[in-house]
Amino acid sequence: MTLPAQPPAAASATRTTVVRVTGAATTHATDLLAVEAPLEISLLHGPTAQRQTRALAVTMRTPGHDAELVAGFLLSEGIISQPTDILRVEHRADPRRPEERGNVIQAELAPEVVLELDRLERHFYTTSSCGVCGKTSIAAVRNTACPLPPDLDSPRVPAGLIHTLPERQRAAQAVFEQTGGLHATALFSVEGDLLLLREDVGRHNAFDKLVGASLLADQFPLGQQIVLLSGRASFELVQKAAMAGVAILAAVGAPSSLAVEAAEEFGLTLLGFVRNERFNIYTHAQRITAI
Amino acid sequence: MTLPAQPPAAASATRTTVVRVTGAATTHATDLLAVEAPLEISLLHGPTAQRQTRALAVTMRTPGHDAELVAGFLLSEGIISQPTDILRVEHRADPRRPEERGNVIQAELAPEVVLELDRLERHFYTTSSCGVCGKTSIAAVRNTACPLPPDLDSPRVPAGLIHTLPERQRAAQAVFEQTGGLHATALFSVEGDLLLLREDVGRHNAFDKLVGASLLADQFPLGQQIVLLSGRASFELVQKAAMAGVAILAAVGAPSSLAVEAAEEFGLTLLGFVRNERFNIYTHAQRITAI
Repeated sequence: MTLPAQPPAAASATRTTVVRVTGAATTHATDLLAVEAPLEISLLHGPTAQRQTRALAVTMRTPGHDAELVAGFLLSEGIISQPTDILRVEHRADPRRPEERGNVIQAELAPEVVLELDRLERHFYTTSSCGVCGKTSIAAVRNTACPLPPDLDSPRVPAGLIHTLPERQRAAQAVFEQTGGLHATALFSVEGDLLLLREDVGRHNAFDKLVGASLLADQFPLGQQIVLLSGRASFELVQKAAMAGVAILAAVGAPSSLAVEAAEEFGLTLLGFVRNERFNIYTHAQRITAI
Repeated sequence: MTLPAQPPAAASATRTTVVRVTGAATTHATDLLAVEAPLEISLLHGPTAQRQTRALAVTMRTPGHDAELVAGFLLSEGIISQPTDILRVEHRADPRRPEERGNVIQAELAPEVVLELDRLERHFYTTSSCGVCGKTSIAAVRNTACPLPPDLDSPRVPAGLIHTLPERQRAAQAVFEQTGGLHATALFSVEGDLLLLREDVGRHNAFDKLVGASLLADQFPLGQQIVLLSGRASFELVQKAAMAGVAILAAVGAPSSLAVEAAEEFGLTLLGFVRNERFNIYTHAQRITAI
């Protein structure tokens, strides 16, 4: 498939002036902000003789790795299932709307990919950070996933290796160091090597970028690696992990009740509070070994 | 309006068993998780002779204060504009689906409330934590808001008072202390008194619950108080604040670029990194005084 070059406007941090208050003292200073900007995603799809476009979504994301974001989003939502389902991802620009440059993108799907439009229809969106927003029945929350079941017996990873991951992730988080404003998702080998890191103002976007990058590099699924989240683990992130075949999902923050339930059901090893030489194993502890 | 009693199932934390790993040692322990569960929201609306119901959204939320969540959500999305627009909010139960008990709720709107269905239609949802997900054109991101413009000259709040807010918020965050898994939104008077605090796994839900509680108590809009977020400030939270007439929005975490742009445009004083006797003023600094 063809990937777009990221347009020059795609900075992930931007400079601003602030009044800095320290105790009773105030100074004027410049500060860096994590960029948040809308990305409008559309699809070109359908059989060869009847190609058509449709708007899919607008997501607020940090610019950069947009094509990966789109590929990962399509995969974790079950719209595509393999790299060859995407022919091309391309930024588009309407000359009459220069402000949208770099913020409009189209994914061209292979003619044989069938969209289940009914499943895509949503009557509203909601504002939880869970990401399952906008579905109109509770059944729909769970029905989206047709997960890739991971091997319940592998990989096996020693606890000591898990302890080393947060520091390796932080060392690689360039933008977070500047702005304090980004979530990160990292992919590690079972030897503890950092394979990939993606950042975004939205934690679901950071996850989708990582999955999309793996997909586009034909390093998929993710059953023999470890995925580390910089924040908390929600149901939606566990569901996305299951769609990507992840076997071990580790979070620096807390998991929610439904995240634990879903990890149990999908066969994932879920780790939480991974920091300061400690962590909790919530599900499928057999993959974590003492040495 | 009539508010439902929260059903008995509505716990905000639940107990689980974990394997706790500390260095090389493992122990079995019990741990508390923040509850995450879907809430299906529907509307009963229309003129008296033609009342009808429609599904509105499913949001993943922490049970508790569900009616406030619905009221705040309807307000921040521009569906209602005043307390009298809601006649009743009521949990509903289908005896054939006992697992949904407490997770299905209906808001009954006044007959004169007109739904702009076109504006509500969404073709998909996305998974950013921004909350503006699922809209099908970039224009829609900004068009939702018909904000209440705050008074640009008031309130005036001394910097020293701002320094005291995070500690007051933390002291009141009971569930966070137990699970580490909840976002909080707090409402303070300009004297620094904590008026209201709401928590949720989704930060947008915590905000909506706070707004809904204010609305239902007829303490609205929020132009003469201070709202404090336990996490970061995104565009969507600034937009929600603008819909509630907030003049001073403070965040313990970082703001995004678009949050700062929106706060400037909507006339909000936006504070970030409010912790350890320091903070940054990003917009409309005139409301913060030295003493």
